[in-house]
Amino acid sequence: MTDTTGIADVDRLAIDTIRTLAMDAVQQANSGHPGTPMALAPVTYVLWNEFLKYDPTRPQWPVRDRFVLSCGHASMLLYAMLHLAGVRKTKRQPNGTIVATDEWAIGGEDLRNFRQFGSPCAGHPEYGYAAGIETTTGPLGQGIGNSVGMAIAAQWFAARYGRPGFEDLFASRVYALCSDGDIMEGVGCEAASLAGHLKLGNLCWIYDDNRITIEGKTELAFSEDVARRFQGQGWHVLSVEDANDLTAIRQALTQASGQQSQPTLIVLRSVIAWGSPGKANTHGAHGSPLGEDEVRRTKQVYGWPEDEHFRVPEDARRHVAETLGARGKSARQAWDVRYSQYQQKFPDAAAEFQSAIHHQLPADWETAIPTFTTKDHLATRVSSGKVLNAIGKRLPWLVGGAADLAPSTKTLLEFEGAGQFSAAQRGGRNLHFGIREHAMASAANGMSLSGLRPYVATFFVFSDYLRPALRLSALMHQPVLYILTHDSIGLGEDGPTHQPVEQLAACRAIPGLVVLRPADANEVAESYRVAIQGSDRPVALVLTRQDVPTFCRQRFAPATGLARGAYVMAEAGNDVPQVILIGTGSELHLCAEAYDRLVAAGIRARLVSMPSWELFEQQDVAYRESVLPSRVTARIAVEAGIRQGWDRYLGPRGRFLGMEGFGLSAPYEELYAHFGLTVDQIHATALDLVADS
Amino acid sequence: MTDTTGIADVDRLAIDTIRTLAMDAVQQANSGHPGTPMALAPVTYVLWNEFLKYDPTRPQWPVRDRFVLSCGHASMLLYAMLHLAGVRKTKRQPNGTIVATDEWAIGGEDLRNFRQFGSPCAGHPEYGYAAGIETTTGPLGQGIGNSVGMAIAAQWFAARYGRPGFEDLFASRVYALCSDGDIMEGVGCEAASLAGHLKLGNLCWIYDDNRITIEGKTELAFSEDVARRFQGQGWHVLSVEDANDLTAIRQALTQASGQQSQPTLIVLRSVIAWGSPGKANTHGAHGSPLGEDEVRRTKQVYGWPEDEHFRVPEDARRHVAETLGARGKSARQAWDVRYSQYQQKFPDAAAEFQSAIHHQLPADWETAIPTFTTKDHLATRVSSGKVLNAIGKRLPWLVGGAADLAPSTKTLLEFEGAGQFSAAQRGGRNLHFGIREHAMASAANGMSLSGLRPYVATFFVFSDYLRPALRLSALMHQPVLYILTHDSIGLGEDGPTHQPVEQLAACRAIPGLVVLRPADANEVAESYRVAIQGSDRPVALVLTRQDVPTFCRQRFAPATGLARGAYVMAEAGNDVPQVILIGTGSELHLCAEAYDRLVAAGIRARLVSMPSWELFEQQDVAYRESVLPSRVTARIAVEAGIRQGWDRYLGPRGRFLGMEGFGLSAPYEELYAHFGLTVDQIHATALDLVADS
Repeated sequence: MTDTTGIADVDRLAIDTIRTLAMDAVQQANSGHPGTPMALAPVTYVLWNEFLKYDPTRPQWPVRDRFVLSCGHASMLLYAMLHLAGVRKTKRQPNGTIVATDEWAIGGEDLRNFRQFGSPCAGHPEYGYAAGIETTTGPLGQGIGNSVGMAIAAQWFAARYGRPGFEDLFASRVYALCSDGDIMEGVGCEAASLAGHLKLGNLCWIYDDNRITIEGKTELAFSEDVARRFQGQGWHVLSVEDANDLTAIRQALTQASGQQSQPTLIVLRSVIAWGSPGKANTHGAHGSPLGEDEVRRTKQVYGWPEDEHFRVPEDARRHVAETLGARGKSARQAWDVRYSQYQQKFPDAAAEFQSAIHHQLPADWETAIPTFTTKDHLATRVSSGKVLNAIGKRLPWLVGGAADLAPSTKTLLEFEGAGQFSAAQRGGRNLHFGIREHAMASAANGMSLSGLRPYVATFFVFSDYLRPALRLSALMHQPVLYILTHDSIGLGEDGPTHQPVEQLAACRAIPGLVVLRPADANEVAESYRVAIQGSDRPVALVLTRQDVPTFCRQRFAPATGLARGAYVMAEAGNDVPQVILIGTGSELHLCAEAYDRLVAAGIRARLVSMPSWELFEQQDVAYRESVLPSRVTARIAVEAGIRQGWDRYLGPRGRFLGMEGFGLSAPYEELYAHFGLTVDQIHATALDLVADS
Repeated sequence: MTDTTGIADVDRLAIDTIRTLAMDAVQQANSGHPGTPMALAPVTYVLWNEFLKYDPTRPQWPVRDRFVLSCGHASMLLYAMLHLAGVRKTKRQPNGTIVATDEWAIGGEDLRNFRQFGSPCAGHPEYGYAAGIETTTGPLGQGIGNSVGMAIAAQWFAARYGRPGFEDLFASRVYALCSDGDIMEGVGCEAASLAGHLKLGNLCWIYDDNRITIEGKTELAFSEDVARRFQGQGWHVLSVEDANDLTAIRQALTQASGQQSQPTLIVLRSVIAWGSPGKANTHGAHGSPLGEDEVRRTKQVYGWPEDEHFRVPEDARRHVAETLGARGKSARQAWDVRYSQYQQKFPDAAAEFQSAIHHQLPADWETAIPTFTTKDHLATRVSSGKVLNAIGKRLPWLVGGAADLAPSTKTLLEFEGAGQFSAAQRGGRNLHFGIREHAMASAANGMSLSGLRPYVATFFVFSDYLRPALRLSALMHQPVLYILTHDSIGLGEDGPTHQPVEQLAACRAIPGLVVLRPADANEVAESYRVAIQGSDRPVALVLTRQDVPTFCRQRFAPATGLARGAYVMAEAGNDVPQVILIGTGSELHLCAEAYDRLVAAGIRARLVSMPSWELFEQQDVAYRESVLPSRVTARIAVEAGIRQGWDRYLGPRGRFLGMEGFGLSAPYEELYAHFGLTVDQIHATALDLVADS
């Protein structure tokens, strides 16, 4: 494999700067992944320097091309490139907009502190740590999944806000570097299939075909004809036989950046740890430092000063500034001029665009939220569909869909003009994600990172299929709305494979995710208020398949209490309650009936609706104590899921009525009776507790 | 689309029997999926009647061909076929072997009770409910994932136990019917890639290309050239243009059943709800009953008596008995004869084979479990690797591998003769699953269902990637061993994407899964004893990346206490303890140091190791009370994960030291200090609690 093809001295200098920075940083940290940055420095450099529409002094430019390092373990490649490009630090202003500063996002000291406490150069790229890190990557397949969402968002913005004379104003492209792992992971396959189906011509993946994995040669476990597979999935496939051949790389990127009708895969044949005499082309170079001696020997091969660490030659820096820097700045300035013209000509569209990308809500959006009456006997998935449609009209950038379950999850936006997002139609609101839950959620993260407010939907039990992406929504503080229906044994006949039992516990376990299990249509409405208002965390909305009544809010406390996570729905008298019944979702109705019986029998009962543990935990001690007073130890929680976590609210005397194992296939009323989730059982348990007091 | 090609009257009769049984059962249940059984009845019938090596009177025959209905929602297709084939009910004998009875596995009454409480005909096929249901399906992609594991197991048994003159004695084939959903799901793509890589010639998938999904036409979300994609993944692809063309189906199945070197995909062009005048080729026929009138009209089309429900013509039954029944019985009887000869000639191999398929353990296997001394300062993943290798020698059918992480998870079987399982070598023990966690776990379920004892390994955080398959291990009671390493912030620099925080809670939430987080090498050894002894549930073994000391078991209680889930490691004096320190895994060592300090200061402390909540919950009240006495409310639990669920053991006064959110990238010692997981913190918290008593 040559090291000279098409490489001018200054290009070579810049490329070796990236390589040696990666080697030095990993060595200094004594931890990390040097081999891939060494292999992929040429393509990364050429892409950034010559192709990416990117102004390092304005990394927040909304129509910038986006670069995703899906092989996140090669994080030093990104940090070195951002450093060499002089990407500026950004900050959020009080009004929520983001501006660039004069400081560098990744300084030399940051590189030296790679993988150390407080450094923006974390082990894997972490979104929010530094400008230029477009998404958090590391879990394989997620970056390319995100890239599909980013490409969707770019197409959507271009279609939605493009106007005569400004057709291309909002167009941008997305490039992702990916590894064997990304290609082998199922989520990557789903993402590729979706991108091919949607004909995302603005998407390009560069596949690092290094034929090395952690266990050894890739051929141990992988023997796909990747080009053929991707062609079958609707991709335009190019090949670069030598990752050091800048001419071939330029040709491929030129072709990719001219594509309109298909996503492009560039299969890039590379050598891991290129240049390292002892470790090139070995899996030993994947996840461990090269070693001091090997670093030295490799620098010799590069013709690099052996004893200098973290060296960034001024010539390399200047060259990048004069190419990427100058090109990016001039493109961005030209855009600014055109955007001003656009703003004058299309002020409403411009204002809407600004609101979208800054996650601002229209002032009056909440007036769209409907109120339901006791005449509405609706499954919460159905009331959810009504609320979603009502607010969808007010929030133009609320875009989403289901994993081939929209008729069941009730997530189709059906108002006039909602339209679909498809290969033929780019500005619509309804996506058909196909039976690809994982890529759906991963794409939603990318959509959110690009300024859309995405919602995604599937059956609650299949939240297991998208969990790694859900975790990343939470880790990146992205306000993705997960609409998860068929939330318990209440779905009935489909049986245990489809009945969630542990999913409430599993979702509540994810830090930063707000789980909401509303009990009736008005709690659903309030759930949407809470979900949409928060722009810094994902929300899981957990909904029934079966119909439930709508509580009479003259008798019971207003559903606005939902925002506090738990609230007193009703109580008999002002004295200390003898027993507290706590319910969530559909089971709150059982509790309410039992409450009525207890009250009729003269027992001072209290009924608490507890749709969200996370919101409740955010309340102050006084509020929490007011809902669940410590001295009232006779408590019953009723939820058609497992007990895990409920002891926190039950205390040592409390009882839990729920599930202890998987469900069964039968009509749901029979299942509720079989598993003891009945008014009788709640009533009897309450009497038992009261008698025992 | 024709309805006559190659169909003899009696075939037609049998096929329409299956179709109408499905229609009637779904109608009777007023719930279910009629369209796919109506479309796939011909291929299912031909496969069973003319190709499957299957004796309905011996459904437990170990070398039978296996049929997997990956599109599990079409469950009535399977139930109708099992009924028509007269598959017998099996029962387990006291010695653990399974024998067939004279009763039918699926009787006519069972069909009438489709989707009703207690029926073996559940909404989706549930393993264990009736003979002939080879695996639980419904969650899409899982059935085909299982089928890959079954095909691996079949190849393994054939290679391991085949002998000169008996080369083919243990050979069998695996057929799976799959839908768009199976093909679109990432796990299905991973499974296809793995099967192609391993050149599983004994595997055949029949893809129901009906071009209809729940949201409408498949083309809404899916436009792959499936044949091309599968060719890229190493499959032999055949096409049948008409699902009613029995001649074409026979030709394709003949080709598939002759394949040796590649798995086969048969793309079968079908019409959902074939024959239904109003619902054929519409998504309305997917998941709802046809309706009484439409059932009637469809029966007219079939030339079927309109008013008869659940009709099984005697001619159809007799024909299946004379073909499948006679062919299967004679094949099985011939096998019995040859197997007796084999048993005489190779008694040891035969005995080993019998032990494997009946999940029996060699009498002396436990003597292989090593004991560690305080000189061993090992990460628990390392001691795990040692124990796994030690017992692996004694358990020849313990077969497994990692998702490209074996050097990190320490799961390579390295003893002489362990070998690998690959396309070239079928009898080895080490599998390279590639970066495909989900297919790995799904295949492991299939391997386990076929009699192997599989283990699979990845980083703990990536248990999220395989969760749907893990859930099915638990639901099916399969003893798959999940070896999950890098179990906390203790992995250090890789940062929050790689640091499990909520995974302990999420795994503990799965009903029937035993989670073990051993604290040192001897607890690791005991974990393997527990894991291997149990043959009816999966185990998740959660292990550290970082080194931990080995407790001196002269000072501390023996590690055999692990089997009870929690045990008293040490305590000061015999009086009621003033404070109890509860630790798991690596954090138990912090507790032990704090314990020493407290005891030195004259405080009556107790140290409890709690490696498994599930095992602890299985103990009687007296034992649980002996470890965690109710009256001792000063309790501290220390675990580098979230609090969820710990309140059950902490009570209202207890304190928890753990994680409240995601981790960070830094050397692990700094992270433990930053997050307050230190001996000082435990010590101070204990003093605080004691002072407050």
